[in-house]
Amino acid sequence: MRLSNYYLPTLKEAPAEAEIISHQLMLRAGLIKQVSSGIYTWLPLGLTVYKKIEAIVREEMNNIGALEIDMPSAQPAELWQDSGRWQDYGPELLRFKDRHQRDFCIGPTHEEIVTDLLKGEVQSYKQLPITVYQIQKKFRDEIRPRFGVMRGREFLMKDAYSFHADSASLATTYQAMYQAYQQIFTRMGLDFCAVEADSGSIGGSRSHEFHVLADSGEDVIMFSDGSDFASNIESTQSLPVTTLTEPTEAMRLVDTPDTKTIAALVEKYQLPIEKTIKTLVVKAATDCDSDLIALLVRGDHELNAIKAEKHPWVASPLQMASEDDIRQAIGAGPGSLGPVNLPIPFIADETVAAMSDFGAGANIEAKHYFGINWGRDVALGEVMDIRNAKVGDSSPDGSGHLRMARGIEVGHIFQLGKKYSEAMQMTVLDEHGKAVTPYMGCYGVGVTRLVAAAIEQHHDDKGIIWPPAIAPFSLVIAPINYGKSAAVTQFADDLYQTLRDKGIPVVLDDRGKRPGVMFSELELIGIPHRVVIGDKTLADNEVEYQGRTDESSQRIATDTVLEFLLTTLNKTA
Amino acid sequence: MRLSNYYLPTLKEAPAEAEIISHQLMLRAGLIKQVSSGIYTWLPLGLTVYKKIEAIVREEMNNIGALEIDMPSAQPAELWQDSGRWQDYGPELLRFKDRHQRDFCIGPTHEEIVTDLLKGEVQSYKQLPITVYQIQKKFRDEIRPRFGVMRGREFLMKDAYSFHADSASLATTYQAMYQAYQQIFTRMGLDFCAVEADSGSIGGSRSHEFHVLADSGEDVIMFSDGSDFASNIESTQSLPVTTLTEPTEAMRLVDTPDTKTIAALVEKYQLPIEKTIKTLVVKAATDCDSDLIALLVRGDHELNAIKAEKHPWVASPLQMASEDDIRQAIGAGPGSLGPVNLPIPFIADETVAAMSDFGAGANIEAKHYFGINWGRDVALGEVMDIRNAKVGDSSPDGSGHLRMARGIEVGHIFQLGKKYSEAMQMTVLDEHGKAVTPYMGCYGVGVTRLVAAAIEQHHDDKGIIWPPAIAPFSLVIAPINYGKSAAVTQFADDLYQTLRDKGIPVVLDDRGKRPGVMFSELELIGIPHRVVIGDKTLADNEVEYQGRTDESSQRIATDTVLEFLLTTLNKTA
Repeated sequence: MRLSNYYLPTLKEAPAEAEIISHQLMLRAGLIKQVSSGIYTWLPLGLTVYKKIEAIVREEMNNIGALEIDMPSAQPAELWQDSGRWQDYGPELLRFKDRHQRDFCIGPTHEEIVTDLLKGEVQSYKQLPITVYQIQKKFRDEIRPRFGVMRGREFLMKDAYSFHADSASLATTYQAMYQAYQQIFTRMGLDFCAVEADSGSIGGSRSHEFHVLADSGEDVIMFSDGSDFASNIESTQSLPVTTLTEPTEAMRLVDTPDTKTIAALVEKYQLPIEKTIKTLVVKAATDCDSDLIALLVRGDHELNAIKAEKHPWVASPLQMASEDDIRQAIGAGPGSLGPVNLPIPFIADETVAAMSDFGAGANIEAKHYFGINWGRDVALGEVMDIRNAKVGDSSPDGSGHLRMARGIEVGHIFQLGKKYSEAMQMTVLDEHGKAVTPYMGCYGVGVTRLVAAAIEQHHDDKGIIWPPAIAPFSLVIAPINYGKSAAVTQFADDLYQTLRDKGIPVVLDDRGKRPGVMFSELELIGIPHRVVIGDKTLADNEVEYQGRTDESSQRIATDTVLEFLLTTLNKTA
Repeated sequence: MRLSNYYLPTLKEAPAEAEIISHQLMLRAGLIKQVSSGIYTWLPLGLTVYKKIEAIVREEMNNIGALEIDMPSAQPAELWQDSGRWQDYGPELLRFKDRHQRDFCIGPTHEEIVTDLLKGEVQSYKQLPITVYQIQKKFRDEIRPRFGVMRGREFLMKDAYSFHADSASLATTYQAMYQAYQQIFTRMGLDFCAVEADSGSIGGSRSHEFHVLADSGEDVIMFSDGSDFASNIESTQSLPVTTLTEPTEAMRLVDTPDTKTIAALVEKYQLPIEKTIKTLVVKAATDCDSDLIALLVRGDHELNAIKAEKHPWVASPLQMASEDDIRQAIGAGPGSLGPVNLPIPFIADETVAAMSDFGAGANIEAKHYFGINWGRDVALGEVMDIRNAKVGDSSPDGSGHLRMARGIEVGHIFQLGKKYSEAMQMTVLDEHGKAVTPYMGCYGVGVTRLVAAAIEQHHDDKGIIWPPAIAPFSLVIAPINYGKSAAVTQFADDLYQTLRDKGIPVVLDDRGKRPGVMFSELELIGIPHRVVIGDKTLADNEVEYQGRTDESSQRIATDTVLEFLLTTLNKTA
């Protein structure tokens, strides 16, 4: 490609609305242009990158025997009503009526369509397992699209679905998919991490997320310093960090004016934070005989909403109670709450259940009890892991301690079990001729999001540094005074043509820009290898080569430059 | 690919709703499955075919320097309001409101988005011309989706857009696109025809359609037997087929009871059909001072609605007047209408204007005038070409006579001119520093429709006959008693592996089906080349080869079969 024939609208400054570096660089390097909130046009340079990622994903899916299909974006409501998701899905599901007033949605995911597709067609266990996938634009009407294509409304996904006669077959395909995902992200040159995850509202028994590690990641990953354990903090099991001991103090009621926070309690009364309890009040589920429920976590711990929602008494999604509701039910406000004489049911975190001689609100305005002990002073009821794991906690697998990293979720695999096949009444005959409900798995990769994630991980203050496998071009020829110096022009054209003929993805910057401007732009767009051709070095029969991350350039003799480049490109391919 | 690992749900009988052969064969061969009216899932075999077509289209676009981009499906209403199409477009434009109640549509075309994209970014004529394209799913909410993917609601399109500083540059790119389209359809192995077309509601000055010739085609193409002239009947110019002569008869009022049709008039009164006139009444445009307008065509000619709509007096789209409206305005009903004493304005077709001594309704119930002559009996007013061209007419280019063929429109190229750039206020600076409005072109290919069109043209009573360039697999190995005969299994596996290693798109039918069933299925899905391996021929060290259209098979020695196949495949590639 000659840049004079290319469309590369670069920007000197990133628009103010771009908060994170990948969004800034994607706009500045002319990869995308916004059309509407969370909706982008992919320009030639950006499209080339996502097509490269798409090709890697497709190859790895084909390698494990997944079959590519293409399901429609417009999905009839009836199928979503069958699965129950027409009701369950929020406003991020884009619904519309066609000209005949029939209900449809633009599918953000295809469990219903794929189950309906194979239902009736696949009749025997002998036709299983089967894995199908597609690489397709999705629409999710995010309430607050942000970070460019990282959390956009239209995005490209690879979604795969597998069907199995038994759970062992599902586990085998799940494992193959896990390895294919590792292969995809490894080939892309990304530093990533597979973590155990909560399977969330999609249902099912087991799930892993794949995260590209980056400080700007929205997800928090807890991993062990002593084993392979890694998990999203949303679902990282928290072990109790204390062991229950015998009471040593008597319980006493203490006046605690102006002490609404744990920090104040610790500071004013010299209570160790490990001896304090936070009492959080949330709305109860409908089948609980109270309207409100209290959740108790240790003063230095954080509530984990996703864990708490799993308790049958807790309304899902978690909703904090209002101060008015709390006062009406308990007779005291937030900051004075605790388990002793609490008129509503409570759930204690496992660490809280192992505490002794601790302090908590007395459910009387501006009073706390100190020296509380379970059993003697207040009965312990429901106990459950409802807190976030913390750096330094013992790893749940028993090896080492937890550390923390931030990640960008780019892949997610699920063992769905029978949720959709059961709801949509899909059955196959097993080897005894009996109708059984197949097991399902589903497996997603965020193709366009990967472009942003790769940039978050691979950039410097000059711009993007593409990993070679997904670089839009491998090599740029940057002639100084192209079109003015006959020698430079000739040499650049010849080298360009030779490399093209060899099938190298090479680009020639024939726009005749000033060297400073040209170099800045080429660094911004992140081409891995650059050859500068100028009259000065040509006089010595040399050109200059510099890798995108090299600190300085090296001179290469013109008669060896072709061999040098082919060798260098081969090393990084 | 081993068919035992493939998903190929073939059907013995086509579902009743499939009216045309391509729809029947696509369902029977397991290429597609319907999800909703006009909405399909593409199964592995179908997807492979459309990906091959997509790859050919992409290559030819890249070859003429078009740059691939990816514009969003969800388009904000504001842009369509700017161009005026938010109002003009009918209910086939799928409109929706996002969660913030902002108006959007799912773009059936991208003139607005692409003009908005380049507006402001392209500032100088030096950056022009530029051609961008995308290959993308579109949604058009057809009132009556039919013929499978031929007229579906979701379909894959290649749409390209070009921008130019002057009309000469537009003409150059238009010509390059025309040639690229010829290249695409030629490479696909299709018998096609490029025809001049009406540019329709999209606007602009010049346009060509590309049709795959097939008897089931919805379009009628008129072409000359004496030149290269070809045109869609919608826009084929009709020359007058008579020359005005002096009156030889007096006009007379004739009682014509029960004579409501031209056929009856001809039969009962021995009037040659070339001496009769049809008077059709349609609604007038708002700036005409009548509510109704009469259109006159010769008795044996057909009205061309698209031509008539171009007259400023005629409402667009053309709407026939009701019988009540006609009786109220004229005092007589359809079947008794004519130009003499007609109280509403009329437009005469050019052939009508050249008639003499003709008959037409008298605008009195059950009466006609015979022997009418223009000028003497009634004044001739508006004259315009408003009829369909007819087989046998002189070709509009003056060489030869018109013949007719039916075609499936698979491509359409337009010189849009300034319609969108003007409406959306895009300007660039010309070489004198003056702001000018760029010229635009747009260019579409129906990728998924091409799959159906190829089948319409390439099938027999056994099934599909894929042209080699778009066949899902080039070659199938069909072993008899696979898995039972060790010799057959071994030979089939070895041949399959050898061909795969050489990169041949080969499929092995290892499902162990009975030969009759297997051969029928393989013929149905249309793989161009087949090798049958059986114990009988293996005993003679031979296998059987048969091309999909060969009348019989030929025996090939096992030690030369590889060379034979490579040579044969190479010939058709």
